[in-house]
Amino acid sequence: MIDELIKKMTLKEKIGQLNQRLYGWQAYEKVDGEIHLTDLFKEEVKKYDGMGCLYGVFRSDPWSGKNTETGLTKQEAFQVAQLIQTYIKENTRLGIPVLLSEEAPHGHQALDSLTTPVNYTVGNSFNPELYQQMQTHVARELREKGAHLALVSTLDVARDPRWGRTEESFSEDPYLTGEFTKAAVKGLQGDHPKQVGEEQVVAVLKHFAGQGSSIGGHNAAPIEIGERELKEIHLQPMRAGISVGAQMCMAAYNDYNGIPCHANSYLLNELLRQELGFEGAVMSDGCALDHLETITGSKAEGAAWALASGIDIGLWDDMYGHLEEAVEQGLLSESVIDQAVRRVLSVKDSLGLFTNPTPKVEVKDEESKQALAIRLAEESVVLLKNEQATLPLNKNIKHIAVIGPNADALYNQLGDYTPFKRSQAGVTIRQGIETIAQESGMTVTYFPGSLIESPLAENFGFSLTDLAEVEHIVMVIGGSSARDFDTQFDANGAALNGSKEMNSGENIDLASLELPLIQKQLIAYVAKLGKPMTAVLVQGRPHSISDVLPYFDSIVLAGYPGEYGGTAVANVLFGKITPSGKLAMPIPKSSEQLPVNYNYRDLPFKKDYFNDSGLPAFPFGFGLSYSDFRLSNLSVNCEGSVDYPLIIRGDIENVGQYRAAEVIQVYLKSLNKRVVTRVKELRGFKKIWLEPGEKQAFEIKLSQQQLAEYDAQMHYVPMKEANIIIETTSDTHQELIKLTEEV
Amino acid sequence: MIDELIKKMTLKEKIGQLNQRLYGWQAYEKVDGEIHLTDLFKEEVKKYDGMGCLYGVFRSDPWSGKNTETGLTKQEAFQVAQLIQTYIKENTRLGIPVLLSEEAPHGHQALDSLTTPVNYTVGNSFNPELYQQMQTHVARELREKGAHLALVSTLDVARDPRWGRTEESFSEDPYLTGEFTKAAVKGLQGDHPKQVGEEQVVAVLKHFAGQGSSIGGHNAAPIEIGERELKEIHLQPMRAGISVGAQMCMAAYNDYNGIPCHANSYLLNELLRQELGFEGAVMSDGCALDHLETITGSKAEGAAWALASGIDIGLWDDMYGHLEEAVEQGLLSESVIDQAVRRVLSVKDSLGLFTNPTPKVEVKDEESKQALAIRLAEESVVLLKNEQATLPLNKNIKHIAVIGPNADALYNQLGDYTPFKRSQAGVTIRQGIETIAQESGMTVTYFPGSLIESPLAENFGFSLTDLAEVEHIVMVIGGSSARDFDTQFDANGAALNGSKEMNSGENIDLASLELPLIQKQLIAYVAKLGKPMTAVLVQGRPHSISDVLPYFDSIVLAGYPGEYGGTAVANVLFGKITPSGKLAMPIPKSSEQLPVNYNYRDLPFKKDYFNDSGLPAFPFGFGLSYSDFRLSNLSVNCEGSVDYPLIIRGDIENVGQYRAAEVIQVYLKSLNKRVVTRVKELRGFKKIWLEPGEKQAFEIKLSQQQLAEYDAQMHYVPMKEANIIIETTSDTHQELIKLTEEV
Repeated sequence: MIDELIKKMTLKEKIGQLNQRLYGWQAYEKVDGEIHLTDLFKEEVKKYDGMGCLYGVFRSDPWSGKNTETGLTKQEAFQVAQLIQTYIKENTRLGIPVLLSEEAPHGHQALDSLTTPVNYTVGNSFNPELYQQMQTHVARELREKGAHLALVSTLDVARDPRWGRTEESFSEDPYLTGEFTKAAVKGLQGDHPKQVGEEQVVAVLKHFAGQGSSIGGHNAAPIEIGERELKEIHLQPMRAGISVGAQMCMAAYNDYNGIPCHANSYLLNELLRQELGFEGAVMSDGCALDHLETITGSKAEGAAWALASGIDIGLWDDMYGHLEEAVEQGLLSESVIDQAVRRVLSVKDSLGLFTNPTPKVEVKDEESKQALAIRLAEESVVLLKNEQATLPLNKNIKHIAVIGPNADALYNQLGDYTPFKRSQAGVTIRQGIETIAQESGMTVTYFPGSLIESPLAENFGFSLTDLAEVEHIVMVIGGSSARDFDTQFDANGAALNGSKEMNSGENIDLASLELPLIQKQLIAYVAKLGKPMTAVLVQGRPHSISDVLPYFDSIVLAGYPGEYGGTAVANVLFGKITPSGKLAMPIPKSSEQLPVNYNYRDLPFKKDYFNDSGLPAFPFGFGLSYSDFRLSNLSVNCEGSVDYPLIIRGDIENVGQYRAAEVIQVYLKSLNKRVVTRVKELRGFKKIWLEPGEKQAFEIKLSQQQLAEYDAQMHYVPMKEANIIIETTSDTHQELIKLTEEV
Repeated sequence: MIDELIKKMTLKEKIGQLNQRLYGWQAYEKVDGEIHLTDLFKEEVKKYDGMGCLYGVFRSDPWSGKNTETGLTKQEAFQVAQLIQTYIKENTRLGIPVLLSEEAPHGHQALDSLTTPVNYTVGNSFNPELYQQMQTHVARELREKGAHLALVSTLDVARDPRWGRTEESFSEDPYLTGEFTKAAVKGLQGDHPKQVGEEQVVAVLKHFAGQGSSIGGHNAAPIEIGERELKEIHLQPMRAGISVGAQMCMAAYNDYNGIPCHANSYLLNELLRQELGFEGAVMSDGCALDHLETITGSKAEGAAWALASGIDIGLWDDMYGHLEEAVEQGLLSESVIDQAVRRVLSVKDSLGLFTNPTPKVEVKDEESKQALAIRLAEESVVLLKNEQATLPLNKNIKHIAVIGPNADALYNQLGDYTPFKRSQAGVTIRQGIETIAQESGMTVTYFPGSLIESPLAENFGFSLTDLAEVEHIVMVIGGSSARDFDTQFDANGAALNGSKEMNSGENIDLASLELPLIQKQLIAYVAKLGKPMTAVLVQGRPHSISDVLPYFDSIVLAGYPGEYGGTAVANVLFGKITPSGKLAMPIPKSSEQLPVNYNYRDLPFKKDYFNDSGLPAFPFGFGLSYSDFRLSNLSVNCEGSVDYPLIIRGDIENVGQYRAAEVIQVYLKSLNKRVVTRVKELRGFKKIWLEPGEKQAFEIKLSQQQLAEYDAQMHYVPMKEANIIIETTSDTHQELIKLTEEV
């Protein structure tokens, strides 16, 4: 069917299918409640007699200018989607429906869509199943509006926390990142890659490849890493995604080996397609193709280079419109264009666009969706410190203070790529705490204290006597990726320069990872009271907190916990749920000691600096609990099935007083005889919830893929010999077992 | 001849030629003034019926325990060399002389040998010719004692100043490093690689390859860089060395692509030998081979792996002694051993060992050698700041203070790999200043103030009233790579833990690059006087000085200027010579912004961090002068000869009041149409001394090699198109000229 269609197409029509130039939110306008398609959209359709993809029709944010008034309600969104598809059907020769692509890094970046926890938070849950369930809701929300493609960051393995997009990464670890990538694909796309259901969308996995290793943590900067680092670290999430049918991915802004990822045939054709077996379409990142004009000196040459290198679809650039010239100038054979068109049309086919591009989807499970978002945020909270079991908060406390710039600022807990929210939306941490306080008759005193980076008022806007009656202080501090949204503080008259307060997110890279000075001053000020203090870290990257650590009796890391994150954090603080998150990224002592990735290559070098430790303040995999656990009866069976050659069995017992979960982490240290292998590598894990006193037998099976490695010749082969390390945080139980059998 | 010799050799004798297990200083003992060879030495000779190389017979330092009493005078050294050669001649079947290899990273690490400025200093001179002359003296000093091989760090391109061995690197730049590598080879070895003169030695260039890009600046740590970074940055110095006949190099401790450099056939056989055309021998680094046992699980396997991968000679390890087993076990063909033996014997032959291993060399030019060392240190001083022309110091100043831990501590200005010095040796900066002060009747007040890292006495050992009469303060601060030597301060009773004060050198990596706290306190204390202050930075790496910058009116960077560095620095301060050094490494604002290498790949990314600049405090190529310069009549001729296709001509005029030098720096920005090239790359430079008012025409010719680049397919090809940038510091004159002709 697709091949026949391609045969019918003119060169111009084909190029139209690779085009994604328009900002989708400019495709419509709302005038007096009436919605029209714009001339801009119609001209773009006419230009190539069709349209491959249209990006961001439903996008809402300061950049698009689509806010709660100018943007689209759910009903309007679906109406616009129908208008677009109908227009294309009726006004193009072939009437091929357009793919509507949308940002959905943590929920759909559109009005009235749920904003879920960011990846930096989700990674700490060590619970991909939960994330997968969350993504099925996100898919349904997208389809409800008529969208087809979910642009979702899953591939970036953040190796340098200075990077502003760290929040879009699940982990520093390739295996953990891969498990969440699989969850994203399965949740969004379902189990049948070639037949995506009407409540599902195709995931466009971002970004391929290596962006998390950019020099200095600078966004979109070059990378210097070599083949083994690329393949062992950055390729693995995509390999995982492909294993569950990933159909699309987006190229990364960086280069590899001095060749832009957007024109890197080795990366896209050899590695991605031949070696990893990817059969889908590759989308370019926004305007990234334009840089190829700078390099080649010509749009046609740049476009031809990119297409031949494996980029199928443009984004906002002024390049793929010049593919016609490229063919005419003999820079490109039409068969290469056909191949890209075939990939795009295949995605359309798998989504059922040729049958019905805008099926009606009813989303009825608002409550379970919200409960799931809370649950995901709860399971992602990491308890970093808990001296004298300060947490959970004593129910007899009569008066609590909630202080800090992230305590009651909804946008600050959402992350970058966030839509406008209606005024009644979401639960801040202050609100979450107040709800529980009401139940128990506790008084809550709240002061923001400061903005993220700037003072809010003289002397923090309160005096210590205001806190005289308070028995416990919760400080909600950290960073913010909120763009130029209004915050609650505007009402107080503070002239808020939004961007000055945005110290995280895309293009907001940090040199020092310390908390902003004003927040450190606020902490020191409040600490003068000498009362018990708990820190809640709301942020999009690991901040180095070594200097403020002594002030706090307890510390929880929430990341950006999303729209209902306030409920989740409050539930954890008050012990309605026990924190069970583990660090998917280490917390460095400072930027000066970077990198501190746990899985470095095992050469006998001196780890410590003369003037600092070489170890992070909190390592990968670390996370305390209100409860305690005991691991016992461990056994490792190296004679498993062909599919799962290695089986680890044991018992885990909750020996504490709270219902709680532990994450059993399985690391391998390969004993390859010709490679400097890494000191250890996560290759399996299991999160188990247990009632107090409950003991459960567990089994962790490692598949062939989990036991594979790159050998000296860079072949991907089964590991022959390894040490196995089984770790948990709570009792730091560890066993070294040598796997001597051929696996 | 060599082939015939090899035919005669038993397997054991061959293995003996690859053996360099013994610490050379253990080959002799001095008892009551009598020198004997030790049994240890004799046993080692007997073990393999011969000896390939013997390391460090003349080494003097705390590790070897050879000090001014237990070590060897020049005469004794020569005597020991003769004893060794005679013993081997008389006590082995074939009587093959042994190569005596010695550390000479900045002068021979032996008693009574001149300790020249370290590479970190020398690089700033931008004067390889001067360094080459210096190296001819070093070679003669080595030969005077009977040594043959000079182990000299030239290949490490320091990309991360946290690395403790940064002092052994000339620059962050591959071309500049390559020019100094050529100078080292030509100076030490002469112009006839196959016929090394009796006053010359063979240079063993360290380290191959990539050590300057270790993760986190940790010494001997893994590197993550890929092929292009390796080839464009780290391979270039070796390419340069080979172009002038380099005969030997040493492998690096790190890995490349997960394979140890000591077992990396791609690196040593393919790249080094096939691609770069190296025909010499590769020595292993100390004990590095032992790690291969850890990986392979067997000494024989590790040894076979290393030898087959291209390592010809061991060092201290317990591995190459097991090559016999490797051959017996069929892990290695004897022909591979023959190849390594041939390389070792060829080096011996080129040095004339078969004729006379210990020719008598008279060193007569002590004065010119010393003058040259001073000259080299002078030309390496970089003037970083000079507000209100504070420098040169006014001759009318009647009273000057010299303060700081590096003002009068000889070892602190020498660097790592330094021999013991006799008490009368060298000139400290205090001494240098006092000598000049005597000429003019100036009073010099001196206080050390502190140690490098620790307090020396309460309140710095002086009060501000002690400085009441002083008109100008020179603070000599920085770092130290001095090992457990005694310093002058011991006499004061301060319990000096030497290693605590050593914050630089091998294995002493730093996280924060700031000056030690005690020195910052000392600066702040002295600054209270409000008098004019000059900083002299004596150190082995760039320290970040942004926080102390405002205290000083003028700052000069001396690095470790060597034994006569005090004279050089004093000459600069008092204007006997105008500083002409340029930074061969940038000075970062802090570790938090690393890397700040100037020649990053030119992607359109945001350079600045949210909370700091992305630029270093002082960039590559920067250095002020007491004078001013004007560049004019620039022309670029792209139609040069085949050998030198590009010629840049112009006039440089000294428009200031001092005899002074400017360095004209030629950068290229390749316009390769398929590669993300670097923003700019140094490809030529010329240092020109001019009298006040003098104007000189200059010509800078770029050879084919200077115009080569790696294309998209990693072929090393002529650059086709480039922008040319001609820069000096003083007038920041810059011209962009497009080279459109095929070069």
